Amino acid sequence: MGKRLTGKPVSKAIYRAVKEDISSLGVEAKLVVLFIGDDPSARFYVRNLENRGAKVGIVVETRHLSGDITHQSLLSIISELNTDSTVHGIMLQKPLPSQIDEDEIVLSIAPGKDMDGFHPLNMGRLVLDQEGFLPSTPAAVIEMMRHYEIAVAGKHVVVLGRSAVVGKPLANLLLRKSNVGNATVTVCHSHTENLAAITRTADILVAAIGKARFVTPDMIREGAVVIDVGVNEINDGDRGTIYVGDVDFVGCEEKASAITPVPGGVGTVTTALLLRNVCLALKKSMGLA
Amino acid sequence: MGKRLTGKPVSKAIYRAVKEDISSLGVEAKLVVLFIGDDPSARFYVRNLENRGAKVGIVVETRHLSGDITHQSLLSIISELNTDSTVHGIMLQKPLPSQIDEDEIVLSIAPGKDMDGFHPLNMGRLVLDQEGFLPSTPAAVIEMMRHYEIAVAGKHVVVLGRSAVVGKPLANLLLRKSNVGNATVTVCHSHTENLAAITRTADILVAAIGKARFVTPDMIREGAVVIDVGVNEINDGDRGTIYVGDVDFVGCEEKASAITPVPGGVGTVTTALLLRNVCLALKKSMGLA
Repeated sequence: MGKRLTGKPVSKAIYRAVKEDISSLGVEAKLVVLFIGDDPSARFYVRNLENRGAKVGIVVETRHLSGDITHQSLLSIISELNTDSTVHGIMLQKPLPSQIDEDEIVLSIAPGKDMDGFHPLNMGRLVLDQEGFLPSTPAAVIEMMRHYEIAVAGKHVVVLGRSAVVGKPLANLLLRKSNVGNATVTVCHSHTENLAAITRTADILVAAIGKARFVTPDMIREGAVVIDVGVNEINDGDRGTIYVGDVDFVGCEEKASAITPVPGGVGTVTTALLLRNVCLALKKSMGLA
Repeated sequence: MGKRLTGKPVSKAIYRAVKEDISSLGVEAKLVVLFIGDDPSARFYVRNLENRGAKVGIVVETRHLSGDITHQSLLSIISELNTDSTVHGIMLQKPLPSQIDEDEIVLSIAPGKDMDGFHPLNMGRLVLDQEGFLPSTPAAVIEMMRHYEIAVAGKHVVVLGRSAVVGKPLANLLLRKSNVGNATVTVCHSHTENLAAITRTADILVAAIGKARFVTPDMIREGAVVIDVGVNEINDGDRGTIYVGDVDFVGCEEKASAITPVPGGVGTVTTALLLRNVCLALKKSMGLA
């Protein structure tokens, strides 16, 4: 039976460190969240972020913008926030409406305020082992590995999924010459031939493809570490709507040496890391990082 | 006996296309090469680049700078070149002397003139599937695969080496949702455990580690495609100094279905792609790309 790697102890340690940092600086850190439209789960996420921020001393200011805002207006708002020295970080809440050119919007955010870590400059720094802002989800996987002291160097990590927000940045992070790095990394995806044969060679399997319970026990090897990044909404009969990961947890838990649950795993850590980015941005603005 | 994939037909096609493009635009394209010190092989490379440029209609202007130039002076020169509208591309010839902070210098080059593709903004664009300037060596591997119609989609490509100039950008390019992409990609390096067991699973093996004849026949599987990016200077007794790849060519040629020679393989294509970047930069400056 695999050890359950829960996210709470990891996020708790990060929140504590951020709170101490902010309080020792004695200034107010501010994150502006651009919230377009009224997606209900996004609303839930942002409310949680505001509460979490308040607890660690970061003001999370949500700008509610109309769902039919023009691309140009959004650019103007970002341009103002870029030059406002009381704003340390900007976050773009997804989903974005179709009239918005996401790549161009992300590019317009000052890289030093890009808390999502999606600006190409920050993504390039990630690949080049230079300091920048890391995207929260791949960084959360790294923090889980660090906290639970999972041996990564030299091990074969198979990443399922090549998205720009998780799979690709995570693969690049795992290749870094750092503490939780130096891994041999394979990235698999929808085009991969003989997928199960490859995933079975993994010492560590990271699932980030957004398909409910896609990873079945026959796809992992006895004793592997399984990290589940997926969050999929499914209808579970009597229980109604529930959230499950990309991994068939019940079956895989038997075989794995360690496994992250969903919910309560990797996802628990992402908000903490977003707020840690804001703390880092504040420090940089003060010339302290 | 594996088919020899030579670079010449590939570079020839690229030179021809660049020459036609430049001539149809009817303007002068200019690349400035910053050459610091007097490394003999760098000097040889730059002279070749000047000649190649002349043949396709690109002026390659080499600025010979003293080996003891200060970091600040180099920054000033780049700043001038960035704003000079007659200069379409800037290339930084390696090696750089130790007083130069390479990361900072690369960051100071305007991303639109960064012909090496090493600016973090261009590296991030590469990862994010956005248009930018690609580094020549990984792009040369892709062009070789394209020219020789090597099936890549869904195949397992093992990249040996995780450098910022070859291994990492190549891995990200091979993951792109494009023609010569959609591969399953594994990156191995000095920390990799059970290296030969992994390389033997490769449909395509790319060697980019800078170790002479490191890849031996027992490390590849029958019928694999072998792409050799290495260029290593060795002393070969009576023959004196010769250049060999990262692959033990004689042995591996027997087993591979196709293999690139060194010299005469991937390296032959890099200069052509650097000049293609200059052509692209010129077009962009004219609003045509």
